[in-house]
Amino acid sequence: MSLEISAAALRSLPAQVTKGVCEALFVEAEPYPETQAVAEIALDLQGIPGTRHYGFTRKAGPREPWYGRGMEMRSGRQITVISREELSAISAAMQVATVAPEWIGANIVTSGIPHLTLLPAGTRIVFAEATLVVEAPNAPCRIAGKAIARHLSPDSAPGGLDLAFPAKAKGLRGVVATVERAGTIRAGEAITVKVPPQTLWQSG
Amino acid sequence: MSLEISAAALRSLPAQVTKGVCEALFVEAEPYPETQAVAEIALDLQGIPGTRHYGFTRKAGPREPWYGRGMEMRSGRQITVISREELSAISAAMQVATVAPEWIGANIVTSGIPHLTLLPAGTRIVFAEATLVVEAPNAPCRIAGKAIARHLSPDSAPGGLDLAFPAKAKGLRGVVATVERAGTIRAGEAITVKVPPQTLWQSG
Repeated sequence: MSLEISAAALRSLPAQVTKGVCEALFVEAEPYPETQAVAEIALDLQGIPGTRHYGFTRKAGPREPWYGRGMEMRSGRQITVISREELSAISAAMQVATVAPEWIGANIVTSGIPHLTLLPAGTRIVFAEATLVVEAPNAPCRIAGKAIARHLSPDSAPGGLDLAFPAKAKGLRGVVATVERAGTIRAGEAITVKVPPQTLWQSG
Repeated sequence: MSLEISAAALRSLPAQVTKGVCEALFVEAEPYPETQAVAEIALDLQGIPGTRHYGFTRKAGPREPWYGRGMEMRSGRQITVISREELSAISAAMQVATVAPEWIGANIVTSGIPHLTLLPAGTRIVFAEATLVVEAPNAPCRIAGKAIARHLSPDSAPGGLDLAFPAKAKGLRGVVATVERAGTIRAGEAITVKVPPQTLWQSG
C-alpha cells in the first residue's frame, strides 16, 4: 500500500460488498442467555417469533441507564450475530479451548466476514430470503461470562472466567441486528454483506 | 493539527457528543412531500401519529429496487431531519434565494450540528423528552426537486430546478431517523447529539 495515502481518503470509504457463510443458527434455550442449534429460523419483521428478544420495542434495561428501567423503547436487539473467527479470537484471548456460540446468546454464526463486530450500523446482511440491518456492536456482558464459566469450570468461584469474558471479548462480541426483510434463514447458506459508504464524522 | 497523524488514528474515532438546537418542526401537508410548521410534535415509537411515514414497517418503493414494490419491510424512515446550514448550502449551490424545509418533506430543522448528513447510523439525537436514532443519509429525490421548482419558478418547464436539486443537494439532504424514546419535541429546544465510536470497516 502506498505511504502517500491522503488523510481525506482515509476518512471516507465507498460502499463495499463482501460474501460470507451462515455457518449455524440458534434459538433461545434455558438458562438465559443460552441458545440451541436449529437448521432454520423463520424471521418476521419483529425477529424470532416466541422468543425473548422478539418485538419492535423492548423494555429499557441496564444497557440504557439514561432511561428509566422498564421504559418501552425501540428494540434494535432482535437478532445477535457473531463470527466463528471472532469466537476463536475470544477463546485464544481467554486461554480456553473453546467458547461456544450457544453459551452466549448467539442466533447466527458467520464465517468469512472479516471484523464482523466492526461492521458499521446500517450494514445489510442479505440472506436468500431475509435481510438484516446491523444496529450496533454487541457489548460483552457478565451474564454471558457466567455462562462460559458454568461450562468450562463449573466448580470455580466467581471472579474468573465470568470476568475474563467481558474483558477479553471487547471488540469481538459480534453485532445486534434488526430484520428488514422477513423470510426463512438456513444454516449453511451463503450471505452477502453490503456495507454503506462510510465517512468519519467529527464535530471539529 | 500535527502533520504526523497516524493512519490508524484516522481510521477510528471515539464517541463524541455535540450540542445543537431544534430550530423548527413540521408535519406533512398537501401536496406530498410538503410539510407545515408546528410548535411541537408528540412522537410515539412509530413516529408521528396519523402521517404517511408513521409505522414500524412500510412498503418497499423505488428506493429499494432489490425488493418487490409493495413488500412490507422495516421502515427506518419515520422522521426526516435536515440542518439550516445544509439548506443554505443547497440554495447557494442551486443559485436560488432559499430552499424552504417545508417544501422538501422535512420534519425537523436543526442548527449548530456540523455536517448533519454525515452523522453515522446509530447516532442518537436526544431531545428533552424523546430520542431519535439516525438511520441513514436521506437521498435527494426528484419529487422534492419538483416541489422546489413549483415554489421558485412555477411556470418553468421540467428539467430545471427539479433536476438541479438532486444533483446539488447530494450529501446535504439530512438524515432519516427512527424514534427510540417516545415523547413530545418542541421547536426551539436544545438537542444533544451522541455519536458512537467509529471505525472505518474494510474487507481487505
